[in-house]
Amino acid sequence: MAISQVQNGVANGDAVAAAPAELDASKLTINLATQLKDVPPAAELKFGQVLTDHMMVAHYDPIHGWSAPEIKPYAPLSIDPASSCLQYATNVFEGMKAYLGPDGTPRLFRPDKNMQRMEMSAGRVALPPFDTNELLKLIKKLVMVEKRWIPTVKGHSLYIRPTIIGTRSSLGVAASDSATLYVIMCPTGPYFRSPRPVNLLAVQEHVRAWPGGTGGYKLALNYAPTFKPQQYAAKLGYDQCLWLLGDKITEAGAMNFFAVVRRDDGDLDVLTPPLDGTILPGITRDSTLALCAAHPSRTTLPGLDPSIRLHTSERELTVPQLAAWADEGRLLEVFSVGTAVVVVAVGRIGFDGKDITLPSYEGSLGPVGRGLYDRLTEIQEGRFEWDNWSVPCDS
Amino acid sequence: MAISQVQNGVANGDAVAAAPAELDASKLTINLATQLKDVPPAAELKFGQVLTDHMMVAHYDPIHGWSAPEIKPYAPLSIDPASSCLQYATNVFEGMKAYLGPDGTPRLFRPDKNMQRMEMSAGRVALPPFDTNELLKLIKKLVMVEKRWIPTVKGHSLYIRPTIIGTRSSLGVAASDSATLYVIMCPTGPYFRSPRPVNLLAVQEHVRAWPGGTGGYKLALNYAPTFKPQQYAAKLGYDQCLWLLGDKITEAGAMNFFAVVRRDDGDLDVLTPPLDGTILPGITRDSTLALCAAHPSRTTLPGLDPSIRLHTSERELTVPQLAAWADEGRLLEVFSVGTAVVVVAVGRIGFDGKDITLPSYEGSLGPVGRGLYDRLTEIQEGRFEWDNWSVPCDS
Repeated sequence: MAISQVQNGVANGDAVAAAPAELDASKLTINLATQLKDVPPAAELKFGQVLTDHMMVAHYDPIHGWSAPEIKPYAPLSIDPASSCLQYATNVFEGMKAYLGPDGTPRLFRPDKNMQRMEMSAGRVALPPFDTNELLKLIKKLVMVEKRWIPTVKGHSLYIRPTIIGTRSSLGVAASDSATLYVIMCPTGPYFRSPRPVNLLAVQEHVRAWPGGTGGYKLALNYAPTFKPQQYAAKLGYDQCLWLLGDKITEAGAMNFFAVVRRDDGDLDVLTPPLDGTILPGITRDSTLALCAAHPSRTTLPGLDPSIRLHTSERELTVPQLAAWADEGRLLEVFSVGTAVVVVAVGRIGFDGKDITLPSYEGSLGPVGRGLYDRLTEIQEGRFEWDNWSVPCDS
Repeated sequence: MAISQVQNGVANGDAVAAAPAELDASKLTINLATQLKDVPPAAELKFGQVLTDHMMVAHYDPIHGWSAPEIKPYAPLSIDPASSCLQYATNVFEGMKAYLGPDGTPRLFRPDKNMQRMEMSAGRVALPPFDTNELLKLIKKLVMVEKRWIPTVKGHSLYIRPTIIGTRSSLGVAASDSATLYVIMCPTGPYFRSPRPVNLLAVQEHVRAWPGGTGGYKLALNYAPTFKPQQYAAKLGYDQCLWLLGDKITEAGAMNFFAVVRRDDGDLDVLTPPLDGTILPGITRDSTLALCAAHPSRTTLPGLDPSIRLHTSERELTVPQLAAWADEGRLLEVFSVGTAVVVVAVGRIGFDGKDITLPSYEGSLGPVGRGLYDRLTEIQEGRFEWDNWSVPCDS
């Protein structure tokens, strides 16, 4: 008994863990809200404003490790004013969506990719590690608890925001040895309500991300510096900023950027900037590259001529190059992709005081963008099986 | 009467302000803690770990503007999990110190500079504006309330951390239209306990700041990315990172960097990198430049030969240039400055797998660094009057 007590770190009757506990979904406790909110009609949803009834929370400290996770009523967090998350921005998050499949089962889209990226993001700002499989189990549990919040209208879904915040409460400039992991959710319709293309203002004065910086990680701190330029863009009538590094295109707002260019042989190039550390490794970006590369050999994109081959390439794109392709009539489509928008057409780009007008199509998206949008949403909603990308939450 | 009511926005009996209220120190309410903490002995103070009994808090929302500020017992904040400060890092802060003068009056050091910088920082991340004069009045009030916390030991002070956090609680990626402003404080001794020089690891792989980025503002988000490289530097036996852009020196840890180089005419050059947007416009940096430029014409730095002129210059510095000056015997001193450290000598710089050993002096600081340290602390503690830099809190 004495030996076993020492092995367990229980030396003098106090319960002290020998090693910090891992995040463990089997320890989950569920404490349901006694009063549930009314779910707003799908048509009235504004992105991110109405959160669901519950949240999942687990805390980490360097002595005990991860606490038993808890699903409990959505409520404010109690945070020390000296906390790392408020003072030094040790905050990471993910963006995911749950869809209701035709069988009535909630589904996630490639959630393993979000978990991997979140692990990378947390490591970049020296937050405590966590078991990504356990977090995914907890997210699935929370989706099942909040199933009534998943809109059944096409193009709508339940947006999921896993977050980790550093909770070390000391002003010393050092890594946070404590953290809170939480998951919150909101029902959402299309990110941009209108089906029109988005217009982008190319921004050179403010640089979103740079080589050796943090643009390749999903960190809270990548976003605050974008708000002032975004306000300026809105004032000039643009929807989002197109972030440049010199004249190189990096990201469009919080989306990845794609151009479709006609080749001399009649095939199409599908081009996007490479993951050089200035660009978020988007999951819709990765899926777009995979689905385009599979057309027409493994699958055809809905509505797209199967005799046209799509050649994907991760390569440098500049605004002048884009303008030149547009002038030559070789630029077929420009679109942006992301979890929130899926795929959205780009209408024009403001650059150097002038507007570059991009090809326009009825219904906004061109044939490649439209085919991608339709195929991605079919997969996400569980209506088209593709490489186990759609993962049921009851599994 | 009806007209006056409409002018005040009180149309139907509800108290609705016509314009959002300004931050107003005259509205301050003070709610003192009933139980006060024991102030730890000065020798046991570790930077940032023991906060004082009270904090100052004011809230902003776009309808009412700034709430009446309150000094109240130090306590956790209640923060919505979807808040901008947690999700998008809309957080700014300042670092200041209060010193007890020989007359027993608490004093601040050039606090107007901190207020100006905080206004700039808040603007950069699109946080609501505030009246900097009113905030300074509130900080003085809080210092007076916490006077018993100011250590009387030389080299010790009360560190002040004004903070603004974005409190908009929506996941939409947009500026925070709501905020909480708060001020917390902790008694502090010398930032580095030992009087030995700090050793720096030059870091090229990770880049702290970039032209067009946010390195010139005091934002929480500038710090989280430094923790992982800082852990790596510590593992190799260095105290802090020396942040480079290519081989150009930007900052040393969270301090500004200075080199003192002997000129052919026997005078000294005091060099620091220019404010090109990658460098925090430090108040100790500015004070260092001013005091050096004044030697010997307006004042002499304590212990420094008045026949030596100091020529200050804000210019590009590279590590190879520093090594070359060291080899030629022209490099006299390298030191870093900041609110927390005041002035600290740099002992060696790890670069490209080798160590560049810098000139060493008994007691760690060289003659210029020592003279600056002594003069700065004399001014800060109210023992030497200079250009109204030291501001009494009861004024």
